[in-house]
Amino acid sequence: MKIVIVGASGTIGSAVSTLLASLHEIVRVGHRQGDARVDMTDSASIAALFDATGPFDALVVASGNLAFGPLAQLSDEQWQFGLESKLMGQIKLTRAAIPYLREGGSITLTSGIVSEVPIQGGASATTINGAIEHFAKAAACELPKGLRINVVSPTLLTESREAYGPFFPGFESVPAARVALAYQRAVMGVQSGQVFKVFD
Amino acid sequence: MKIVIVGASGTIGSAVSTLLASLHEIVRVGHRQGDARVDMTDSASIAALFDATGPFDALVVASGNLAFGPLAQLSDEQWQFGLESKLMGQIKLTRAAIPYLREGGSITLTSGIVSEVPIQGGASATTINGAIEHFAKAAACELPKGLRINVVSPTLLTESREAYGPFFPGFESVPAARVALAYQRAVMGVQSGQVFKVFD
Ligand SMILES: NC(=O)c1ccc[n+]([C@@H]2O[C@H](COP(=O)([O-])OP(=O)(O)OC[C@H]3O[C@@H](n4cnc5c(N)ncnc54)[C@H](OP(=O)(O)O)[C@@H]3O)[C@@H](O)[C@H]2O)c1
Ligand SMILES: NC(=O)c1ccc[n+]([C@@H]2O[C@H](COP(=O)([O-])OP(=O)(O)OC[C@H]3O[C@@H](n4cnc5c(N)ncnc54)[C@H](OP(=O)(O)O)[C@@H]3O)[C@@H](O)[C@H]2O)c1
Repeated sequence: MKIVIVGASGTIGSAVSTLLASLHEIVRVGHRQGDARVDMTDSASIAALFDATGPFDALVVASGNLAFGPLAQLSDEQWQFGLESKLMGQIKLTRAAIPYLREGGSITLTSGIVSEVPIQGGASATTINGAIEHFAKAAACELPKGLRINVVSPTLLTESREAYGPFFPGFESVPAARVALAYQRAVMGVQSGQVFKVFD
Repeated sequence: MKIVIVGASGTIGSAVSTLLASLHEIVRVGHRQGDARVDMTDSASIAALFDATGPFDALVVASGNLAFGPLAQLSDEQWQFGLESKLMGQIKLTRAAIPYLREGGSITLTSGIVSEVPIQGGASATTINGAIEHFAKAAACELPKGLRINVVSPTLLTESREAYGPFFPGFESVPAARVALAYQRAVMGVQSGQVFKVFD
């Protein structure tokens, strides 16, 4: 399989790339580094990406940013930031990838435990991660060529404890290598429209 | 109770207004008609609305538009339309209402069965209705003054069969008067962060 991984240099994306590279051809895509570059908030940049990669079998998106802050203070701009990046970025990548994906291929997006478990200052993150999961449920019913789409929802990664741990008091973390398995399950499995949770 | 109903002239809003008016003081808000006007996509218009209503006990939002179309053809503008109207419109109304809501008051938003049950051309509707439900779950954990927030998710209304029936083949419909009960339950009950489904 030829697998395009957007966010391949990231904490999650690098673990997914490492796991899948032993079995498949990987196109590592980042914003500022990788085999190819893309700005997932920019439709023209996304079009150029797939023009460059050509046909492939699986798209994995392990990128997309969110804003955090108290509900009463989250500004329109902060809401817009997450909607444009993590939600519409993943939706635009999905839409643009369809013509390039081969028969029976797949799309795997990323949400996060906050879709299900609210945290302080996470109203926008819960909303947007939840939206991604609902998007995949609907898109699964409309995709052509036997394409599948799923979402991986990881809890806090052990590798991200230092950066985000304070926002997740008492949350168990999971190593990136374990999270990567859920992406492999989504890419190489048979289900569609599912959320693969990596927690509980 | 003083209850502000945005979308009070609509199919759902008028049934909610009729039901609640026998027990409460209702401020009927619409875009082009009602006791007060608002454009829910416009923060300045929302600020002016609550400045005019003054303090109140419950906000009900039974408005917000969505775009429909095949997944592969839904344009950025169509996605943006629903995100600005039904999602951010309800979120902006929620945020702006908080300072005006009295202790122990409530906010009731509207999603729809499509959050849970995909329909042809409904990828954006599923995504955005789902986002609203996730928003309420998170916002419920952060609201001050003992405020509650819930979402009513109706299936197709009997009164809307002519307009939207073709998009819902084989779906049972429910009369607006029954849907209105779910709003009453949300406004006068004790739960928060819940989705009150009017289907199944
Ligand atoms: N880490 C966690 O604990 C955790 C838990 C649950 C969910 N998540 C979610 O998982 C996703 C990835 O998280 P992560 O911690 O692995 O991220 P990360 O380490 O910060 O890596 C981000 C990746 O996204 C790329 N990127 C940044 N801006 C981009 C843009 N505009 N267009 C395309 N790619 C862009 C980066 O590329 P460059 O390196 O080239 O800039 C990098 O490869 C995020 O959506 C996050 O919310 C993370
Ligand atoms: N009808 C159904 O079968 C059904 C089922 C499930 C969910 N829903 C959802 O329930 C909500 C209401 O549906 P409905 O069928 O009752 O709607 P509707 O009959 O079309 O009424 C819409 C209401 O929203 C107001 N409105 C329109 N644009 C607005 C704006 N920019 N700012 C503030 N208010 C605005 C209208 O005011 P004016 O009259 O003054 O223009 C009117 O009161 C929608 O979000 C819909 O998706 C409907």
